Amino acid sequence: MPGTAIILFAHGARDPEWAAPLRRVCSAVRAQAPELRVELAFLELLAPALFDCAESLLAEGFERIVVLPMFIAQGGHLKRDVPRLIDELRERNPQARIEVGCAVGEAESVVQAIAAHVLALAAGTA
Amino acid sequence: MPGTAIILFAHGARDPEWAAPLRRVCSAVRAQAPELRVELAFLELLAPALFDCAESLLAEGFERIVVLPMFIAQGGHLKRDVPRLIDELRERNPQARIEVGCAVGEAESVVQAIAAHVLALAAGTA
Repeated sequence: MPGTAIILFAHGARDPEWAAPLRRVCSAVRAQAPELRVELAFLELLAPALFDCAESLLAEGFERIVVLPMFIAQGGHLKRDVPRLIDELRERNPQARIEVGCAVGEAESVVQAIAAHVLALAAGTA
Repeated sequence: MPGTAIILFAHGARDPEWAAPLRRVCSAVRAQAPELRVELAFLELLAPALFDCAESLLAEGFERIVVLPMFIAQGGHLKRDVPRLIDELRERNPQARIEVGCAVGEAESVVQAIAAHVLALAAGTA
């Protein structure tokens, strides 16, 4: 019986190439944790939508979904749009545990990695 | 005579708190490179605007401005809005070198940091 699935949840854009770095994150996670189910989903413009991705994982039998927002910071989408989507998913799937993390850009390790990248660029080494 | 200044350029949001993780990036860079001039600027909704920030640094005497987009990926803003702003800055300041980097989320070190964060969350250690 499957347990937890992770959804890397991103904004989306008209150009499918926009999602390329997020696909790289997804691949890096899968490479390091092949047993972990991880999917990429979007708020708008690209498929799958967060709602469809979560419903599909729940239909497969996953009992816990962890949604990790691939956003630089906690803006209006994460404060308003996403809670509405999550509420609807919870209502339709009362047996499931559906959790939402913070914007990835707020994680201290990511802040430090961005700072290191900026410093490397400034030093001409990135 | 000042040389290069770096602008961490972010989207902006209605809530000023949105920018908190970007201020943390800015502080981390300043802490590690106190001699480097680094400022935070925005596309919309928060001040300073990219244009005003760049003009102000050029007025101070900086000869080279490096704009580093604090975006998860290279979307419409970076493909359309930012080049227009940069073109205008270059026309008004033909003596200056104005460069624009890629979206920070596309840097390999940042992709790997995000993947490590996802794995740590999945393992319950972040």
